[in-house]
Amino acid sequence: MTCELVFVGTELLLGDILNTNAQYLSKQLAAIGVNVLHQTVVGDNPDRLRRVLETAFSRADLVLTTGGLGPTKDDLTKEVCAAFFGKPLVLHDESLQRMRAYFSEKGVEMPQTNEKQAWMPAGCVIFENRNGTAPGCAMEQNGKRLVLLPGPPREMKAMYETGVLPYLRPLTNAVIFSREIRTFGIGESAMAQRVSDLLDSENPTVAPYAKEGEAMLRVTAKAATKEAAEQLLQPVIDEILSRLGGVVYGVDVPNLETAVVSLLKEKKMTVATAESCTAGLIAKRLTDVPGASDVFGCGIVSYQNEIKERLLGVDPAVLAAQTAVCEDVAKQMAAGALRQSGADLAVSITGLAGPGKDELGRDPGLAYLALTDGKQTVTRTVHTGQTGPGCRSYNRTVFSSHVLDMIRRFLA
Amino acid sequence: MTCELVFVGTELLLGDILNTNAQYLSKQLAAIGVNVLHQTVVGDNPDRLRRVLETAFSRADLVLTTGGLGPTKDDLTKEVCAAFFGKPLVLHDESLQRMRAYFSEKGVEMPQTNEKQAWMPAGCVIFENRNGTAPGCAMEQNGKRLVLLPGPPREMKAMYETGVLPYLRPLTNAVIFSREIRTFGIGESAMAQRVSDLLDSENPTVAPYAKEGEAMLRVTAKAATKEAAEQLLQPVIDEILSRLGGVVYGVDVPNLETAVVSLLKEKKMTVATAESCTAGLIAKRLTDVPGASDVFGCGIVSYQNEIKERLLGVDPAVLAAQTAVCEDVAKQMAAGALRQSGADLAVSITGLAGPGKDELGRDPGLAYLALTDGKQTVTRTVHTGQTGPGCRSYNRTVFSSHVLDMIRRFLA
Repeated sequence: MTCELVFVGTELLLGDILNTNAQYLSKQLAAIGVNVLHQTVVGDNPDRLRRVLETAFSRADLVLTTGGLGPTKDDLTKEVCAAFFGKPLVLHDESLQRMRAYFSEKGVEMPQTNEKQAWMPAGCVIFENRNGTAPGCAMEQNGKRLVLLPGPPREMKAMYETGVLPYLRPLTNAVIFSREIRTFGIGESAMAQRVSDLLDSENPTVAPYAKEGEAMLRVTAKAATKEAAEQLLQPVIDEILSRLGGVVYGVDVPNLETAVVSLLKEKKMTVATAESCTAGLIAKRLTDVPGASDVFGCGIVSYQNEIKERLLGVDPAVLAAQTAVCEDVAKQMAAGALRQSGADLAVSITGLAGPGKDELGRDPGLAYLALTDGKQTVTRTVHTGQTGPGCRSYNRTVFSSHVLDMIRRFLA
Repeated sequence: MTCELVFVGTELLLGDILNTNAQYLSKQLAAIGVNVLHQTVVGDNPDRLRRVLETAFSRADLVLTTGGLGPTKDDLTKEVCAAFFGKPLVLHDESLQRMRAYFSEKGVEMPQTNEKQAWMPAGCVIFENRNGTAPGCAMEQNGKRLVLLPGPPREMKAMYETGVLPYLRPLTNAVIFSREIRTFGIGESAMAQRVSDLLDSENPTVAPYAKEGEAMLRVTAKAATKEAAEQLLQPVIDEILSRLGGVVYGVDVPNLETAVVSLLKEKKMTVATAESCTAGLIAKRLTDVPGASDVFGCGIVSYQNEIKERLLGVDPAVLAAQTAVCEDVAKQMAAGALRQSGADLAVSITGLAGPGKDELGRDPGLAYLALTDGKQTVTRTVHTGQTGPGCRSYNRTVFSSHVLDMIRRFLA
């Protein structure tokens, strides 16, 4: 079944709101084997919406809309869609009662304008709105289906799950199932080159993508059941893992920090951090993972030299001779964090996030990292190559990923 | 000038990524008076992309695309668009040199596959990519214009600002100019109520919106010049500021951390942080602001009680009697951070980010904050009311905003 998503709302065309509904619905529909081939955003304009519906039904069997079901004059999706399918609007008493109850629960009388929301296309399937007033609905004609959902994400999601999903499921007979192989330390092109022959395969498909210094491969299979899809996926996943080796930090793991926290838990070890240029970002990422307190307890942000000396015991002579951005300072910071924290491991970073050059004229994107367990110390030097405006945030993210990757590789 | 945005990428249709480019470009184009009437998302499929271009040019003078400029076989936007305008691809030597330099800066040889990215439509305007390899470009034919941008937001945004905006600006003759009034400590509805009569005005328009615990008002005027637009805006801005009072932390200030760093610089004061539940996020946010090292040098992340005792001098008896989440611990943490750092001010936070309840059965969303300058100490208790799945990230963000707001109000 091919599908088009139509998002109605001038606020989307002005960039006032982020279209999170697009991602949510696309993901949900992919999971039940509905092929979303287009998404279209159109404003609150009846003529343009009508033409968008024409185009959509020329290339899809199923159209889902969000937005334009509200009580105001602007809200015209239902009126335009009903006319498009040639259905009159009729008052749906149950929806009207539900709306009245919704308002009286809040101790407010229902404004007259809201009654409009209870007039529904004749013969449609109605979806109750558990988080708001506008009901949704589904219409069918000549094998084409049109589903209307409200725009506010909380209302839309609840209605999708309780109403639309049960309505659509019997109509699909395929499952699309994906797994994601996540890497750090290899570029997207280099990763794609190692698996280039697999990128042409049809089922499963293999697609590379990249995000903030990480490269990923998505392997997607289509089959009658999830189990059958998984059977198609496994040999391809195994082949890719054997080709990519150590750069892979996980399959279906949301991010590096989750992989690191899991590894530390597995090894029953704790880590402490000493951060200069990332200034809390590594600690923040580790503790984004619920339950991180088992493996992380202490972080020291030493953004000024005085604090590096005072809290981490970095030698002022080294700072004076080499500046704070050097390998020796990174090593002393890690040693200091280990001492202060009593953790099993400590990591550190000192570098230039940007936007400007440092006092020696060095470009941003340079960082020195160290890791110590008290016996051995490993170090890493990072050059991100990012020096332009806006490099600061990227460099800090990639620097912190390198520190997490260093922990991962040390433990693995 | 009417415009359609075309986003190319199967990952968007699968819901794997959120289309933040749509919001960014829509907002940018609205600001220069370009009328975006449709947004379309299509997969990495040459036939469908060609048909989407046909539809787009049937209803718009200007089409901007993002995505599909990468080095892999999937990346076909440039090839399809050039063919659509009947332009052959020719090797652009400068882009090739730039790409080689990009790789050699990273100490890596350019993979052969990347050369594809330097083949550009004949006669196009080329936009340099300062954050990646793929150049963008603009083509023109019979009054229709087609602009190609890369998909990764960082690359796309920098290219839009440095290349596309200067290219488009001479083509438009209206200016839409907005100013943003940012608040913390008031809900969106309460804020909207205080200015409800202004929400109906036409030029300038006043629109409320909300984001992660903050409420904002955007005031937008349309005029022939930026100066004329600003003259329309000023009296409305003044009126709103007088109605909202102390909850406003800035006009056209990107975020709370920027407001706080500016205030600290103005007062020539430094701040130190002691974080438990936010675990580095406050330090990270302060240092997101370039030049933060003038006002911030020391952060201590004490995620476990032992570290609160050892590094911040929190009394073990208080921890035992009241747990770590209480006002007394927050006060002692702030005092400890002031002592350890030698800063002028220290702030602290201890709380429950979630997702689970604590050992006393208290819900997530509760935090105790303290601020001290060694003479006076102020405290704040926060209840975000967010306890559901996914509350962790929201709570941590809102907690950190409260700490920043506490600094701001102390200094103001």
